[in-house]
Amino acid sequence: MAIRIGYLGPQGTFTEEALLSAIPLEGKELVSYSTEQEVIYAVERKEADKGIVPIENSIEGSVNVTLDMLTFEASLLIEREIITPIRHYLISSPGMSLKDVSLLISHPQATAQCRGYLAGNLPNIPVVAANSTAEAVKRAAEEGRTVAAIGTRLAAELNGLVILDSDIQDFKDNKTRFVIVGREAAPRTGNDKTSMVCFIYEDRPGSLLQILQEFAYRYINLTKIQSRPTKKALGDYCFWIDMEGHLEDEAIASAIKCLRCKLRDVKVLGSYPKADKT
Amino acid sequence: MAIRIGYLGPQGTFTEEALLSAIPLEGKELVSYSTEQEVIYAVERKEADKGIVPIENSIEGSVNVTLDMLTFEASLLIEREIITPIRHYLISSPGMSLKDVSLLISHPQATAQCRGYLAGNLPNIPVVAANSTAEAVKRAAEEGRTVAAIGTRLAAELNGLVILDSDIQDFKDNKTRFVIVGREAAPRTGNDKTSMVCFIYEDRPGSLLQILQEFAYRYINLTKIQSRPTKKALGDYCFWIDMEGHLEDEAIASAIKCLRCKLRDVKVLGSYPKADKT
Repeated sequence: MAIRIGYLGPQGTFTEEALLSAIPLEGKELVSYSTEQEVIYAVERKEADKGIVPIENSIEGSVNVTLDMLTFEASLLIEREIITPIRHYLISSPGMSLKDVSLLISHPQATAQCRGYLAGNLPNIPVVAANSTAEAVKRAAEEGRTVAAIGTRLAAELNGLVILDSDIQDFKDNKTRFVIVGREAAPRTGNDKTSMVCFIYEDRPGSLLQILQEFAYRYINLTKIQSRPTKKALGDYCFWIDMEGHLEDEAIASAIKCLRCKLRDVKVLGSYPKADKT
Repeated sequence: MAIRIGYLGPQGTFTEEALLSAIPLEGKELVSYSTEQEVIYAVERKEADKGIVPIENSIEGSVNVTLDMLTFEASLLIEREIITPIRHYLISSPGMSLKDVSLLISHPQATAQCRGYLAGNLPNIPVVAANSTAEAVKRAAEEGRTVAAIGTRLAAELNGLVILDSDIQDFKDNKTRFVIVGREAAPRTGNDKTSMVCFIYEDRPGSLLQILQEFAYRYINLTKIQSRPTKKALGDYCFWIDMEGHLEDEAIASAIKCLRCKLRDVKVLGSYPKADKT
């Protein structure tokens, strides 16, 4: 039976691009969902075997909906991470030039990432919001020749449009880290990362310091620390922590044991091979 | 001359509600801007004397654009914080009931905060995105009697609409913290908070631990720690830290002095009176 992989669609999103770049599609069935929530719920409810969602961007920071869903709404493991460069393209009908563009359709996050380019190259052109870069390109294809969109190269191809300008994002080193979530623990490779969420007792100041000390004492290198609200009260946080190493490493196993004695809870989200920072 | 205060508009947003709830308007001129960026740029360029922007929500977490603008794009001080409950209202033309609603207009963040309510009470009703809750209500007023919106009570009043249902947000303890930014250092009141951003050397693991130790050693209570990307590379962070106390307190002044010896930079964003958690 084909392995069902849920992704943030529609066809032509960065999430689909990341998936296609990393995984051979043989024996896989890709299923498109319209939000990160739906992807994760689909895996949680076993409608899909695995799901791929963005978790962090080098410019925008954490994708909070992904962190919160994995923290509060699901019991899944991260099986793999994929890091891909985010390249925004200005997309239009064939034969158009920048001065022909009368309207731009774009996902607000893509618009924000290309703000400098747009101010310099398409000043005073109205920008209409779309729900994804893929939807933006699809609508540009439908709405007429002077309508442009910001999107992926894949979306341009899927919709019979062409690239009017490339790499229009303001920060050139723009990368997104995606994770594949599922129910399988990834085996130790020797070059792994581990993710967990630490829940502190709200009335104990210095708890984050205690957490960091447990890791520093064991020479465990942390690669990400992200505070997130517990959704109970302003100022009440939990901490998403990524580190180098595998749950089967003695140092990490022992740190978790000690943290479980001190903290309200530690939710382990799995170990997985470290991606190349392409 | 009137003090010019920039706020995230249009009229009827939560930001305007927060401002009106906290500040006497005598001698003030309110100027509406359409994004957090524009508010902060306006103050930075001295088009406005002060600006009010959201900085943190108890459900969604930090407002990243505000943190990043104050960290990377402006040299302003936080003069005050205001904490207000966020109450979402379902708004429509007078005389309508839930079953009459054929279309909902809403800002995506408001939609997300009312997801449970909408699934239970307005299932299968299409949701059209707007750029702010205030714009959503304005458009609902223009588009016809069966169109509803999610917005503030103030926006309903401004547009001649009525409240169809109250407190439709999924989490009842939904609060937003706003800050007023400007160029004046707020005097010490004895019940203050201080904000700063710590920039670490990228190749030194354990830097956050060092930072927290400086504060713990001096019994300084931290109320917020938020990692943000420096926008240089995936995994390269700076840390926004809020704490109890004033820059004129010896403990805080001494902690900053020690941190400046160890870190790449410490950007102080000011001390300001601590808000009641209403």
